[in-house]
Amino acid sequence: MPNKVAYLGPPGTFTEEAGILHDSAAEFLPFSSVFAVASAVEAGTADEGVVAIENSIEGSVNDTLDLLIHQSKLLIRKELVLPITLCLMAKPGTRKEQVNLIYSHPNPLGQSRKFIERCFPKAEVVAAMSTIAAVEEMKGLDRPAAAIAPRRAAELYEVDILAQGIQDQATNVTRFVVLAAEDHPPTGDDKTSISFTFAEDKPAQLHGVISAFAARDINLAKIESRPAKGRLGEYVFLIDLQGHRLDRKVAETLREVAGKTSTLKVFGSYPRFRYQAPEGDGGKL
Amino acid sequence: MPNKVAYLGPPGTFTEEAGILHDSAAEFLPFSSVFAVASAVEAGTADEGVVAIENSIEGSVNDTLDLLIHQSKLLIRKELVLPITLCLMAKPGTRKEQVNLIYSHPNPLGQSRKFIERCFPKAEVVAAMSTIAAVEEMKGLDRPAAAIAPRRAAELYEVDILAQGIQDQATNVTRFVVLAAEDHPPTGDDKTSISFTFAEDKPAQLHGVISAFAARDINLAKIESRPAKGRLGEYVFLIDLQGHRLDRKVAETLREVAGKTSTLKVFGSYPRFRYQAPEGDGGKL
Repeated sequence: MPNKVAYLGPPGTFTEEAGILHDSAAEFLPFSSVFAVASAVEAGTADEGVVAIENSIEGSVNDTLDLLIHQSKLLIRKELVLPITLCLMAKPGTRKEQVNLIYSHPNPLGQSRKFIERCFPKAEVVAAMSTIAAVEEMKGLDRPAAAIAPRRAAELYEVDILAQGIQDQATNVTRFVVLAAEDHPPTGDDKTSISFTFAEDKPAQLHGVISAFAARDINLAKIESRPAKGRLGEYVFLIDLQGHRLDRKVAETLREVAGKTSTLKVFGSYPRFRYQAPEGDGGKL
Repeated sequence: MPNKVAYLGPPGTFTEEAGILHDSAAEFLPFSSVFAVASAVEAGTADEGVVAIENSIEGSVNDTLDLLIHQSKLLIRKELVLPITLCLMAKPGTRKEQVNLIYSHPNPLGQSRKFIERCFPKAEVVAAMSTIAAVEEMKGLDRPAAAIAPRRAAELYEVDILAQGIQDQATNVTRFVVLAAEDHPPTGDDKTSISFTFAEDKPAQLHGVISAFAARDINLAKIESRPAKGRLGEYVFLIDLQGHRLDRKVAETLREVAGKTSTLKVFGSYPRFRYQAPEGDGGKL
């Protein structure tokens, strides 16, 4: 039986691309929210769930952090970092010079603004609910229109790619995580994600936690504070550290941190992603 | 002469609301990007600029952080924290029961999904480039439509508010900053925002900076690490600390931190915002 992978749909999104990179042989099940993806995995409808966690252009990643902090017992089993490569696509036979209407979600439209101003200064720019809705609407029109969407959408909807890598920021990447009932066994090059809170807001507290990691030479890959849900002025701290929660020195430190914090939640340990350079022609036509 | 305040327009956005909260007697100048707002202040076209810095629903706040980190010498003079109150609005005389089409930017549509499912399960939901474009398109239609936008848009476009506070998360707030050539003199209850980087990625480095603040009992209101622009694996750290950069112990610590970091940029010192409870009826009709 193939692995069943739930993801934030519809088909053709960057999250589906991340799912295919994770396990191209899997059966993919699209869901309409991050919460629904997690529910599908918790209920056993899917084995794993793929959701964006940082810098997505297709929806709020706060949903994923809120899920991990407050709502779910699922663990992070894997991370995936994808270059966000936006493509301009149109119905087969459409020539670039003809395009006078461009559809997409406002976020990718904003991220491709310089490309549009340079190459299609006279085109009408129209908002869609998602990049996929943009491709569908573009296909339904009689006039020569184009849509901005991930490459995968062009395959699914059988349209032609007129230009790729058209986003203004060449280095734009999104980080995805694979959620499951269990995290990943140690591989020797792992990361662990945790969240914690303090009962009181004192300078020495965060310092105490950071010291605990520094004392054992554990590197922090990421640190972030976020307002606690519904309690203004209180913060949840998020840390990604290098190492596996089963490594002796990480395990010791986490026990120490548990004693210094009001709540501590370990989101899981997983192999550090090895980066591949983004492709794209920088929007040249 | 009134104070001239540049902001991320068009008129009717949450950023304009923040500007009015900042100085209701000012002359307001809308610009189409965060970068254009800063340029207007730097060129002297405006005295101050208002932009969102955290958790906006109207566009990417990464633009503001990138501006402060990399592109501008402007300082933060003030912070403003606004509850994001979304309103459902329609042409005068439209009854709630008639509404069968709802326009907005996909982000506020997503944030009001439960309200729409509960109160308008049969309505068609259509994307617009911004909340303001949604109100304009709704006004141009013959069928009974509504738009989801900030309250201020209803005044500007002379439409009626059918429901307010319709966002699913009652506690959703956005933080704005006022940028100017100079920051704010000390008031006794201030914050200072800084960014810094390290030449090498070692556990002891961030610990050294946090220790410097903890040693002088300086509280950190916020801490965040972000990938450095264009250099994967390198990070820029952002800290909001309590106190003014001219306070003796803050000034001493900043000098110490400058010696521990590769780059240190002070974004400015400004009075801490006093929160007012959000209004809204939770989307009841």
